[in-house]
Amino acid sequence: MAPERKDKIGFGDLTLIQKPGDFCYGVDAVIISDFAAKCKKPVKKAADLGTGTGIIPLILSYKTQIPEIVGFEIQKDALDLARRNVSENGLDSRIKIIGCDIKNIPRDICGTMDMVVTNPPYVAGGSGLKNPEATMAGARHEMTADMNDFLHAAAKLLKDKGDFYIVHRPSRLTDLLFFARKNGIEPKEMRLVCPDKEKTANIVMLHCTKGGGKELKMLKPLFVYDMAGNYSREIMGIYERECQK
Amino acid sequence: MAPERKDKIGFGDLTLIQKPGDFCYGVDAVIISDFAAKCKKPVKKAADLGTGTGIIPLILSYKTQIPEIVGFEIQKDALDLARRNVSENGLDSRIKIIGCDIKNIPRDICGTMDMVVTNPPYVAGGSGLKNPEATMAGARHEMTADMNDFLHAAAKLLKDKGDFYIVHRPSRLTDLLFFARKNGIEPKEMRLVCPDKEKTANIVMLHCTKGGGKELKMLKPLFVYDMAGNYSREIMGIYERECQK
Repeated sequence: MAPERKDKIGFGDLTLIQKPGDFCYGVDAVIISDFAAKCKKPVKKAADLGTGTGIIPLILSYKTQIPEIVGFEIQKDALDLARRNVSENGLDSRIKIIGCDIKNIPRDICGTMDMVVTNPPYVAGGSGLKNPEATMAGARHEMTADMNDFLHAAAKLLKDKGDFYIVHRPSRLTDLLFFARKNGIEPKEMRLVCPDKEKTANIVMLHCTKGGGKELKMLKPLFVYDMAGNYSREIMGIYERECQK
Repeated sequence: MAPERKDKIGFGDLTLIQKPGDFCYGVDAVIISDFAAKCKKPVKKAADLGTGTGIIPLILSYKTQIPEIVGFEIQKDALDLARRNVSENGLDSRIKIIGCDIKNIPRDICGTMDMVVTNPPYVAGGSGLKNPEATMAGARHEMTADMNDFLHAAAKLLKDKGDFYIVHRPSRLTDLLFFARKNGIEPKEMRLVCPDKEKTANIVMLHCTKGGGKELKMLKPLFVYDMAGNYSREIMGIYERECQK
């Protein structure tokens, strides 16, 4: 078992229990939460598929007024961690963590979500080296659910015209757009994320709308670092830190 | 009838007859020809779908050693222009222009191409303002063939592991990746084209391989202008012009 640690994560008083090397959040969870938080439509109910430590529901609860956020997680260890994180932050009234295989979404919650967010495993099932620790492998590799499963679950959960936000790797972009279209959640905005202005994108964020029109808007890239090697002004804003100047 | 003009286009001694406002090539044709010309595999036979003035076969004949290039065109006026352009440049032995609806590719040439290139109409059928001149409308709007028709024709023409190069608009990226995957020509490399380093991509180039593996490589963007407003060094190289310095 990996040891736990508990940190203040910089969004108000939010704290997070993590297990380094096992369940630990990264920049992807923060930027996709921020992208989703900027959704202009009113959201009463949101879901996070494969919530891990619960980091996305926690950040969404801080950055938005969404009254009900549901995190889905299949791995028992992560599930316990996510529930403790919700309780420790006093958010039980806004965030529910459900132990559930996203391939078997309960019928009674289908079509109830205004928003679905996900930071799914990046590595296609069957490819790449698997982490020997099963929990970590599940967070990185498509072991229990693949890309189509995530997009199918999102499509099931969303109301018509509901919004879907996903962060992934550019190497999987064809899978992403193909299965989004196939499941009727049409890609509307794409934002590439680059280490800096001189480097090629290594992360892609996509905003889809269930039943949306077939036209994609390319947004300007998000640069993580400036050319001096410091976090960019935009990333500092997303993390709500003061710029070093 | 639009008046004709004949220009030297800067690739060796190539000349091109165009009809401004009717059939006139743009940066898209040049950059996709260059992208295709950089294909590392040996190519004996290449096709260009919707060849217009024949600009892509002409540039390919200059930038590569490909011995046989076939341009397909459905519009009679463009067909005549393309054939005259081939003859005027003395390229009848290397370039054939075929009057053909890409929805009806002759059976005897199916599966014979090592490479297919296309700069198809950008605007989805039924949307946007149509140009009152039918020929121009056909070059801009999907009137006689849509995205799936172009990708289906490419898939039919290509040999297994043959290469496909297409230039399009980012707004159509979902269509592009969806129909490529659907037709079995898997996207392998994507290159976004941006006006300059501060602006969002407004062109996308895609390299697919028929029967290729499901992994997309994001290439560094191509910037058309430098920050001083001059053509970038890379664009000058593609056009084979000397940099102003």
